[in-house]
This record gives sequence, structure tokens and C-alpha cells, in this order.
Amino acid sequence: MDFFNAPGRNHLFVPGPVNIPDQIIRAMNRNNEDYRSPAIPALTKTLLEDVKKIFKTTIGTPFLIPTTGTGAWESGLTNTLSPGDRIVSFLIGQFSLLWIDQQQRLKFNVDVVESEWGQGAKLDVLESKIASDSAHTIKAICIVHNETATGVTNNLAKVRQILDSYRHPALFIVDGVSSICALDFRMDEWGVDVAITGSQKALSLPTGIGFVVASPKAIEASKTAKSLRVFFDWKDYLKFYQLGTYWPYTPSIHLLYGLRAALDLIFEEGLENVIARHNRLGTATRLAVEAWGLKNCTQKEEWFSDTVTAVVVPSYIDSTEIVRRAWKRYNLSLGLGLNKVAGKVFRIGHLGNLNELQLLGCLAGVEMILKDVGYPVKLGSGVAAASAYLQNNIPMIPSRI
Amino acid sequence: MDFFNAPGRNHLFVPGPVNIPDQIIRAMNRNNEDYRSPAIPALTKTLLEDVKKIFKTTIGTPFLIPTTGTGAWESGLTNTLSPGDRIVSFLIGQFSLLWIDQQQRLKFNVDVVESEWGQGAKLDVLESKIASDSAHTIKAICIVHNETATGVTNNLAKVRQILDSYRHPALFIVDGVSSICALDFRMDEWGVDVAITGSQKALSLPTGIGFVVASPKAIEASKTAKSLRVFFDWKDYLKFYQLGTYWPYTPSIHLLYGLRAALDLIFEEGLENVIARHNRLGTATRLAVEAWGLKNCTQKEEWFSDTVTAVVVPSYIDSTEIVRRAWKRYNLSLGLGLNKVAGKVFRIGHLGNLNELQLLGCLAGVEMILKDVGYPVKLGSGVAAASAYLQNNIPMIPSRI
Amino acid sequence: MDFFNAPGRNHLFVPGPVNIPDQIIRAMNRNNEDYRSPAIPALTKTLLEDVKKIFKTTIGTPFLIPTTGTGAWESGLTNTLSPGDRIVSFLIGQFSLLWIDQQQRLKFNVDVVESEWGQGAKLDVLESKIASDSAHTIKAICIVHNETATGVTNNLAKVRQILDSYRHPALFIVDGVSSICALDFRMDEWGVDVAITGSQKALSLPTGIGFVVASPKAIEASKTAKSLRVFFDWKDYLKFYQLGTYWPYTPSIHLLYGLRAALDLIFEEGLENVIARHNRLGTATRLAVEAWGLKNCTQKEEWFSDTVTAVVVPSYIDSTEIVRRAWKRYNLSLGLGLNKVAGKVFRIGHLGNLNELQLLGCLAGVEMILKDVGYPVKLGSGVAAASAYLQNNIPMIPSRI
Amino acid sequence: MDFFNAPGRNHLFVPGPVNIPDQIIRAMNRNNEDYRSPAIPALTKTLLEDVKKIFKTTIGTPFLIPTTGTGAWESGLTNTLSPGDRIVSFLIGQFSLLWIDQQQRLKFNVDVVESEWGQGAKLDVLESKIASDSAHTIKAICIVHNETATGVTNNLAKVRQILDSYRHPALFIVDGVSSICALDFRMDEWGVDVAITGSQKALSLPTGIGFVVASPKAIEASKTAKSLRVFFDWKDYLKFYQLGTYWPYTPSIHLLYGLRAALDLIFEEGLENVIARHNRLGTATRLAVEAWGLKNCTQKEEWFSDTVTAVVVPSYIDSTEIVRRAWKRYNLSLGLGLNKVAGKVFRIGHLGNLNELQLLGCLAGVEMILKDVGYPVKLGSGVAAASAYLQNNIPMIPSRI
Repeated sequence: MDFFNAPGRNHLFVPGPVNIPDQIIRAMNRNNEDYRSPAIPALTKTLLEDVKKIFKTTIGTPFLIPTTGTGAWESGLTNTLSPGDRIVSFLIGQFSLLWIDQQQRLKFNVDVVESEWGQGAKLDVLESKIASDSAHTIKAICIVHNETATGVTNNLAKVRQILDSYRHPALFIVDGVSSICALDFRMDEWGVDVAITGSQKALSLPTGIGFVVASPKAIEASKTAKSLRVFFDWKDYLKFYQLGTYWPYTPSIHLLYGLRAALDLIFEEGLENVIARHNRLGTATRLAVEAWGLKNCTQKEEWFSDTVTAVVVPSYIDSTEIVRRAWKRYNLSLGLGLNKVAGKVFRIGHLGNLNELQLLGCLAGVEMILKDVGYPVKLGSGVAAASAYLQNNIPMIPSRI
Repeated sequence: MDFFNAPGRNHLFVPGPVNIPDQIIRAMNRNNEDYRSPAIPALTKTLLEDVKKIFKTTIGTPFLIPTTGTGAWESGLTNTLSPGDRIVSFLIGQFSLLWIDQQQRLKFNVDVVESEWGQGAKLDVLESKIASDSAHTIKAICIVHNETATGVTNNLAKVRQILDSYRHPALFIVDGVSSICALDFRMDEWGVDVAITGSQKALSLPTGIGFVVASPKAIEASKTAKSLRVFFDWKDYLKFYQLGTYWPYTPSIHLLYGLRAALDLIFEEGLENVIARHNRLGTATRLAVEAWGLKNCTQKEEWFSDTVTAVVVPSYIDSTEIVRRAWKRYNLSLGLGLNKVAGKVFRIGHLGNLNELQLLGCLAGVEMILKDVGYPVKLGSGVAAASAYLQNNIPMIPSRI
Repeated sequence: MDFFNAPGRNHLFVPGPVNIPDQIIRAMNRNNEDYRSPAIPALTKTLLEDVKKIFKTTIGTPFLIPTTGTGAWESGLTNTLSPGDRIVSFLIGQFSLLWIDQQQRLKFNVDVVESEWGQGAKLDVLESKIASDSAHTIKAICIVHNETATGVTNNLAKVRQILDSYRHPALFIVDGVSSICALDFRMDEWGVDVAITGSQKALSLPTGIGFVVASPKAIEASKTAKSLRVFFDWKDYLKFYQLGTYWPYTPSIHLLYGLRAALDLIFEEGLENVIARHNRLGTATRLAVEAWGLKNCTQKEEWFSDTVTAVVVPSYIDSTEIVRRAWKRYNLSLGLGLNKVAGKVFRIGHLGNLNELQLLGCLAGVEMILKDVGYPVKLGSGVAAASAYLQNNIPMIPSRI
Repeated sequence: MDFFNAPGRNHLFVPGPVNIPDQIIRAMNRNNEDYRSPAIPALTKTLLEDVKKIFKTTIGTPFLIPTTGTGAWESGLTNTLSPGDRIVSFLIGQFSLLWIDQQQRLKFNVDVVESEWGQGAKLDVLESKIASDSAHTIKAICIVHNETATGVTNNLAKVRQILDSYRHPALFIVDGVSSICALDFRMDEWGVDVAITGSQKALSLPTGIGFVVASPKAIEASKTAKSLRVFFDWKDYLKFYQLGTYWPYTPSIHLLYGLRAALDLIFEEGLENVIARHNRLGTATRLAVEAWGLKNCTQKEEWFSDTVTAVVVPSYIDSTEIVRRAWKRYNLSLGLGLNKVAGKVFRIGHLGNLNELQLLGCLAGVEMILKDVGYPVKLGSGVAAASAYLQNNIPMIPSRI
């Protein structure tokens, strides 16, 4: 299969799946094991406890489902809602669009609040809906914390504040797929009822675990939710949690050991340091985009994403060609523009276990590609802007002697 | 985590997850990749073509879903059936029981045909049901090819023959989780409409791909089936197959490369040789059990399974203690007795990428454990019986110079 | 390269290179690193300290030379001796023969004491030579602890006792290649001056580190030894030990991390438990050989080796065919008979990170091969004898919950 | 061992050991094997043939010795020369110095021709020595192709031309440790008699194979050379080459499989493309250094090295602090200045399986470090200069679809 090789490393800057640290690759380099031996439950127990820490919850119940983010979405919805339930959902980009499509196909009554792509969720519209819903017909608010297609981060604290202002009991369901473990996310403090992420994002694992964490209120809701579900049903997990064997069906042994390594790395670096590092890399990327004279797809600073930057190209350039050429000429993987912004933006993912020099190599590559496709970029300008910022902000690696 | 280590290799003889060959472990030892680059579709295309070969189908459409066998079951059912549909399903052990539980929770009208555990599906009952169903109220027959809990293999050719005799249009849905790639399975010849397996069984991969292969008739049924589904929906796959990008959501890059290696190994050995090897190991195991004076849980030779043998222990012995001791003293992983046969049987899985000396090491271990727990076994007797057979039947390894 | 694959695991029972535990394979699964960063010296420091423990020395100085056992031999000799020096060396099999060949080519005056192959070193002859050497013309005694070709273990404590009886100052140089970390070896207690082993033996690593540990007396001797040497010179190591950077030239980063994992495994199991396990497997093997009615090449029990058993075949059988067939038909790697015993013996290596069921699988294989080649073995007899012993002697795995 | 981890990848830019491509890491991820089975000789045969290709020789005999470059040096010298032999050797930096030290300790009569560090070998001095040596007292010319300490490449074709002009029979012995597989090296065309490299350099493997390739004339010389040697003796290899078993003592199975993968990668990219890529990266690095206003330690363009660049820092900066800070703050491994240039230069290794964006990331890091330590660099300037060149010179990756 001769099209796979190319000299040197692949520079992986899509917003997922992201680079897997060597420590995790090593941890997964193993044979299968009997998941009914005493070893796997003992390992699982530590994982469930530690996953709660990265969601910043002490009261939530985590489910590590052998699925993707799409499956985790489905598990979050079907366990808490019944067909016909009214939910408010925000359409701000391709991934929220796909989630809404799922919500509709699962026969919920979806009240879609749409924003222009590049803007955040319209929380003022939410407020008015909540304010007028004294009958509590709204059963849930579904919102992506970070829209991966446009690089927009929504203000979740504000959502909670709106719900609380009106003492509204709607479930607060959050897609944290491209945020959790990278952006500041506070499940308990923000009263999130269902929070979702996937293993191939900031946790820096292969695809294969859909993380769903449920608040006590969500667990309660699952007892009466009427959506049909079996594979995604929390009930089976809860039964096996009681038994202490944890798994209703076969988990991936490899991902469990990989997750152990991933959590160890995060705790060793410090979750707050991980989040600060994402902010550093996100800021540096935005400074480079500015230096190139290009526009961030994200329209206001309050929505800037520290995990992905969608860069708008001039109308005479096809962003798809940028992505194609990055891969074919520079062994650099960038994110395509999707749906409404196809051809108009390319995306730089800067999440997961990355460091500053990796990002600067990527930015240097993007500059060359921009020149390749006819954009009059000044080579080195983005790197200069990014490194001027970074040079003042990178800490010494604390664990280094 | 000091309870994981023990000298030497773990002897993994549960009927899944099974041993992963080193070639596959190597193939999966890698970083993530962008699944939207041209490389992954090119790889996927070869996988879809080759997966059809191991199901012995040329007309089927394969779906490689990031899930487990339980999820694959759900995908097979929800894409082809609607709530309320009458299906005939055979209860012959724990896994058929779990599948029936799923069928009921998905609101199908399940006509359960129960056998004593250790017996095969009652196909005579099926025949009478089919014979009397001239109205074609039965929409599907659901049957496990191999019941992993009891080591019983059902006669699928016979099922097809019954349906054909009465020109009955019911869908023929087969759980091949512990059979496909190990037992003789012929999707097209037997007119199977939906066939299912999981990556961690005879394919010898980690858990994480649920394989569902659909006949043209099943694909047709999926267009009108009313069961709600999104993650498991074939429609999204079919759309991306058309686009040539193949994946509606992120697959596990690792499992795709692992599957490529797994298929290469199978084709190098030869699928028929793989099946013959499973027969050889299954026969040897049964001869050992006989030599020990113990009973096979499978009551008749026609149902003997070449992938797992459930061994009945005398009533004064708790089979759970055998499994516990195997792990704790001999680093041997055996299968527990489940549900109705808990405490009464232990299981030796002999599927996947195994050879004769691995099995004989396992059998030697089982003999010692039997003695440990007070059963008057003659040490060496099972090994003698098994190796007398094997010594006459192992071929030279053809690829060896 | 289609001749490399075969179903299932390779059963590796040559007396080196031996099976590498998964934990070590994982530890070595990594990129290169700068060996001049602070990390590698920090790692090396722990290794040097811990290597001393497995040689049971507190006063010795270890050198981890990027070479094989043959190179380690050369380092041990050239650093302590000068051309023309008289040394007493024992020829008892192929590896002592090769070492003597090296000694002669390095221009030492080698006083060879030869035994019949299958017998131990003639220590009575040593005693008479020492007794009559009041002039101390003998500069060193060179002896293999365990002769890998015949499975003969020499009595090192006795050598020390002879030297002490006559207050003879000869250096005591020991090839512990197939003994250290598997047999009881006591560098300080036995007054060994130079002890040697290789990474691919009981330490269960790949080939590539030659371990040489020098007593203070050997270090002193190195200051005046006139044999030319550069790559193997201890002086360069000692200089870099002083500097705290440890390496005069580039080490294998992989083997350093692998060694760390190997030592961790040994200490977790307990060095005495490791030695006991080797005794258990050696005993079991000898019982099987006896049950088959075959002779151990080792002529007396006092010399029995717990790391390798050389089995004598009847004169009408060519042992080379046994080894060939083991590999080609059973994916079992056995040791050939070498030189004088070529065609007459085959060897079962039972050293390194092995457990009981692995050995029993091997023994079951050997039985079938013996039958293949026309020897009237009773199948199961060796396994029965071995497992009768083992069943009473295997402890529970202490680290297992 | 908490000082090993740091977020993201380590940026390894020392001139050896270098980055190992994932394909090679995968190939080495395995258990040991019996090196006396038919498989290893079959593999070895392909390796020996293919190693000749990367040395550009059809008449040479390769030896893959389990050692480092230092050991390979020793093997090259001791097999072809006798103590007391007069050899001409060029001292131009730390590695030629160490080699000369070895030559002297091996008791050759070394005629040292010294250059200022940063200059190439004085070939005019060689010419005058050769011209005046009509008695052919000079037995060998020893020269490094590329001095790793200063980044100086010598003109080997010129050496051959001098020897030929005077029909001088001296052996031509070349250290190609940091050149072969990266710089243009032509063993047969240049009449090199002994050429040496190490696995951890341009071949991109771990340390552990010392490659020595001998011309027919060198093989002839080895028959009479009187230097004592055993481990490094070609004779033992030649004997086992005759036998077709290839190995006089245990090789590293892992490195053999790794070498197979390394050679496959080189041939897939094309050796000439590999060399061109090194030229591209070397040129880009030199342009960056120039843009920073710093001096290349290499004094003339004719000696510029495409595998390593030694950068001279202003006298008020300690280059050791640059290296320390690179590792501790940026996870970047740079080469120290050695011996005479300690504190005065730092080195950027740009050899092995690297690509352009990796190099640009490194250069961006160096810029930040230079600013950190007080050098008034314009951030982005080196990257701009390097990428302006690269953007015009990087080809599409030919294997990419």
C-alpha cells in the first residue's frame, strides 16, 4: 500500500482524531485479556473514579461506552428523553447540525435555534424561550460546548444561569466532544446533567470510547425515559456496576489500558496546566492567522476556541486545495471546511497532547501552502507572531530535571 | 497496579476476547491519522471487499460499525424490522438469551423457541411454525450459529432448507459472533440475510468493530423498517459508500489497520485451513474431556462446537473455583459457566489464532486444576488423548521453508 | 516474506534468545532519545545500582556494554589479563570451547582442563594445579557457570573454596551467560572477580547488552593489564561514570528502557522466586525426559541445569530432524545439538520469563515429535510426570488478587 | 520516573541517535526468535544484499556487527592492520579525535594531520605525504566522511584521486557514520576499502549494529593483519557466510527486522531522493543560520554538511545553556558543542527520516531560545529564510495518491 508512506512524521492537525502520545501507544501495545478476570474490574474502578475528575464532577456517574461520539450523543439522549419530548437545540455548525439531525430522527420535538456559522449559540433566544415556558414543556437544552466545524466555544455557565433564573427544570445536555480535557469544563458547578466526549479528542486516544457522564438528575430521568435503547442503555451498566464486574458486554481491553495512561499523563501535567496549554496554543494560532491577514471564522473573541481554529480564505482560493496540498506536499493533515463553509475555511486543530514547536512547524507549513495557492502571505510572519507570544509564555516543563 | 503481572505468558482460553497475533499487534502500534485523507478510504475499500470473502458472500454489503457484538445485533435488527414485528428466536444459552432480551426491549414480538441448555435450536419447531404461517406473519428468524455459553453449533443450512420448502420470505438473521472465520459459514449459499460478528472473536482483534453484512433483501428491508436508529443506521453508511469516503463518523484507525493485518493472515493461511485448524483443535479438546471422564455440556455430536467446549463438572465441584484457580495459580484464563450453568460448567475457548501446542499447554493446566479441586483425574490423560489425535493430523506449516 | 508466519504463537524453547515479556516489549516500543540529556543518566544510574543486585554484589562495578556475550567475554579477559598470562580454563562443551578459542586467539597461555561432554568441570584437576602453583603463575581461572550446550552447571562455591584453601590470588572469571538471574549466583560471597552475562538470556531482553561486573580486584588488575582494547575498555566507562554522564559512546536507548522493565519484573516477582521457578521448570523437564525413557546428556545430578536440558536421542534418530520438525510442524523452537553432540542431543531451554503451562505445551510437543521420528514414546507420559510434580509445587501467583 | 514526560513529542535534532520512523518501530515490536531457524538466515541474506546498495558497492562484503560506531571503527582497523603500521589520519573535530585515540591505543603509528576545527581534512598535506612515500610505508588513510562535531564533509573523491595519481596502495578507510544513507557516498567508484556506519544515524534505527563493509582488497588484508581480535574478527563471519547460517554469535533479532524496514523505506523513497532531501534540509538550515546573523562553524561552503550544522554563538552566550533550555523548556533536543567548541557552538542534526515541517518547528524553537538567552534575533527570520527556499523546492510526495 505504497501511498501511506512519506518521509518523516505526519503532522496531524485535524481537530480529531488527534496525536496519541507514545506513552499511550505503549500502554495499548498488548494482547487481549479476559475481561471477567479480577484484573479488569480493578482497572476499571480506577478509570471510573478518574474520569469524573476530568469532567469536574463528584456526583456524576460515568459510562464508558464502546462507541464513538455519535453513539455517545445517542446514549445521552435516549436514556433521558422520550419520543415527542420538546428540546431546545442550537445549530451553529456542522456538528451541532448532525446532532440535531439525530435528535429529529429519534423523534424528539426539536426547537432549533440557529446562528450564522461562526457565531455562538443565541443564548438570548434561549432566555426568552425559558422565560415563556412556565409550563416546563422544554425537557432539555442540548448544546455543543465547542463547535468543531467553526471553532466556536459557547458559554455554558450562562446557560446554567438562565435555567436557574427561571428555576427551569430542563435537563442540560452538553456535547463536550472537542472541549473536555482541553477547555475549562465544570460539570457540577455548571449543573450539567449529561456531558459527552470521545476518546479520540483531547484525551488523545484512538476512537472507540464514547464517554457519557450523567448527573443524579439524569440518572433519575433514565428510569422513566421511553426512548428504546439496549446497547446504549445505562441500566445495564448500572447493574454491572452493582455487581462490581462493570461491563455488560466486552470492552476494548486496549482502550482501557490506554485510558489509564492518558489519565496518568493528564494528572501528571495537571489538568489546569493542560487547559492553560490549550489556551496558549489557541492564542498563538490566532495571532498567526491575524499576521497572515486572514480572518478567523469565529466572529467574536468571546467565542474563540482553544481547540480548533477555522481560517477563512479569500474567495479566489478553494480551501479544499489547501488541505489537499498540505497532505500531499507537506505531510500535514488539516481539517476541511464542512457543509456551509466547504471550500471557504480550513481548520487547524490544536487539541490533545501537543506542544509549541509542533504547532509552529504546522504554522510554517500553512504559510508555505498559502503561498503555493497564490495567497500573498509573508513567509515567517505567522510564525513570528505566534512565537513572539509563546516565547514569553511557555513555562519550563516542570517535570524536567 | 501490581496484580496484573505474573511470570510468563497469560494463557488466554476464554471464547473471546481471544489472542491477538503479533502481526496484528504490530499493525495497530501507531498514531492516529486523519480519516478524511485519501489513505483511509483507499484502505477501507480493500477491507470491505475482503470482509465479504470471510462471510462467503459476493452479494452482501458489509458494515464495519465501531461497536461490539451487542451493538451489531442491534444494528442488524433495527435496520430490518419494525416494532411489533413477529420474529422467531431460539433460546439455547446465555448469548441467545441476551439477544432475545434485546429483541424484546426493542419491542419486537418475539416467538421464543427454547431448548434445554446443551442442545441445539429446535428446528422441528421452526418447521411447524413456518408450515403454519402461510400468512407470513413471521418477519424474521433469529438464530445464533454458535452458542458461546454451551458450545452448541446450530445447523444453518437446515434453517434455509425449511424456509425454502415453504417459500417463506422471513428474513434469516444470524449471530455468527463465535463462528465466522472459524466455523464453516456460507452467507450466500445459505441465503442468510443479516450476518453478524465481532472483531474480538475469530478475527483475533481487540473489541471495537461490530461486523454486520446485509443481503440485498435485508438492504431492501432497511428502507421501510421503522425501528428508530441513528448510530446503527445503515443509511448513513450507504450514503458515504456512495461518496467514496466510507465513514459517516470517525472509525478507529487502529482497528482498520489491524483488520487489514488480520485478513492478510487469514488469506495467507487460507480460510479453509483456518476452519480445518479449528476443527482439529475442537476435536482434540473433546477427546481430552472424554479422557478425563467428564461430560461435554453439548449433548449430541451434531451440535459440537469447534470454537468453544463447555465442560460439565461433577456436582461436588464448583466450576467457578476452577476458573478462579486457573487464573490465580496457572495464569490460565478459562470461561465461566453462565446463568443456568453457573458453577456447573467451565469453558475452554479454542478459537482465533491458536496452535496445537498452545492448546495442549492449556489442557495440561486444566488437568492439574481438576486435581487441585479434588477431581480424580489421571494427569496426562487428556493430553495423551488429544496429542494422539493431533500427532496424526497436524500438517506441516505450508509457509515454512 | 511468507515463510515467517504460522498460526498461533511461536513456542520459543531455545536456551537463548528467550521469550521477552510483554511488559518489556512495551517498554522498548519507542523513539530514540538524546543520550546526553539529563534523562538518560538518571535512568542509567538506577540500572547500574539494580544490576548489582541480580549479581548479588555490593562491591562490584557493572559495565553494560553494547555487545553480545562473546564481546562481554572479551571485555572480561582483555581488561584483566595480558598476552602470555597463564590461565586455567575448563572445556566441557561448545560454549566453553568457543571461549577457550577466544582466550587462545587473544594470546593467553591457556591451560585447558577438558571433561567429557555431559560432565562438569574437573575441579579436582583444578585443585592439583592450584596446589602445585605456589609461584602463582596461574593468573586466572575461567569457568562457565552453566554450559549451555550440554546443560551442565558447575559448582562455583567449590572453586572459591579451592582458591582460598591455597590462598591463591588467581582471578576468578565466570561466564554466567545462561545462569545469572536464573540460577543461584553469588558474586560477592563466592569471590567472583569478573562475572558476565548477556541481555538475551535470563534477563529476557533482545540481544545487545553484554553485562560485565568487575570486583575491586578486577578493577585493580585492569590498570596494568596489557591486552589491547578500546571498545571493550573499562577505563572509558569509569571516566564517564565519574562525569555522571555514564556513556563513552552511544548506548541503545531501547535496551536501557527494556532493562529497566526487566529489572522491575524480577524484583516484583522476587529474585529468589525467579530462581525457584527455574528450579521448578528444570525439575519438571527432567522428570519428563525420564518418563520418555531418554537420557539427560548431563551425567550426574550434581550438574543438572535448571536453565537448559540436553536430551540424548537413541542412535537411530538424528536429533537435527527433531529440531527441524519441531519448527516446521509445531512452531516450536528447540536447541540443536552442537559440535560433538550434533545429531545426538536436542536441547530444551527453560530459562527466562516462562511459566508452567508454557513448558507443558512444549513437552507435549516434544512427545509428538518423538513419535513422528519413530521413537516409541507413550504420548502424555512426560506431561504426566512433569505435571504430577508441578501440581504439588506451583505456588499461587502472589501478585494476583 | 517523572522527569521523562512532557506534553507533545520530543523534537529530536541531535545528529544521532535520530528519529525512528513508525514503520521501523512497528517492525521491531516483537518477541525474540531462534536465530538458528531457517527464517533468520533467509532474512539476513536479503539484508546483506541490500546493505551493499546503500554503500553503492557490488564488490564489497558487509559485516553487521552487534556493536556501535566505535566498535565498527575497531573492527575496520584491527582486521586490516597490524600494530606498528603507519597510517595517516585527519583530526578535524571530536569524532576524528576519538578515532585517532583509538588508533593510537591499538598501537598503530598514526601520522596525524590536524586542521582547525571547522575546516576539512588537509588533502594537500595528504598529497605531499603520498607523493613522498614511494616506499609505501603508509598502510592506510583514515578519514571521516562527515565530522559530526563541526558539520564538515570531506571530499572523498579527491582522496582516491590522490592515491591513484601516485599509484599508492594504502588502504582507504572511511568513517561514514554520519554520512552513509544521507550524503552521496560511492564505495566502489571512490575505491573505498573499509566503510563504516552505525544503525542509529541515517538508517534511523536504535543503536546496536555497527556496519563495516570491506572491499576485496580489505578482505585480502584481513588474512595477514596481526592485530588481535575475536569479537570483531571478520574471519568468523566469513566462515558462517559460507555455511549459510550467517551469524557467529547471537544477533539482535529486533534490529534485523528493523533494518529490513529501514531499507524498505529507503528504497521506497529512493536513495537519491533521500540524499536530495538531506541536501534540502541542510540548505534550509544554513539559510536560517544566516538569517539569524550567526556563523556556521564550517568555514567554507565546500565542506558544508547536509546532516549536521554547528552554529557558532556570540562569545557572550554559553551554547550549553541553549541546549539545556531547548530540552527543558521546548522539549527540543539539540547537540552540544564538544571539546574545543564546547560552549561555543550548538548543533542541529538534520539527518534521518525527517521532513520539512519538522525542521521548521525546530528552527522556530531555536529562534525562541536564542531570544531567551539574550541574542537579539528577529523571531520568524530563520523560518522565513528556510521556508522561502523550501517552498520552491519541496516536491509532491510521490507515493501519495
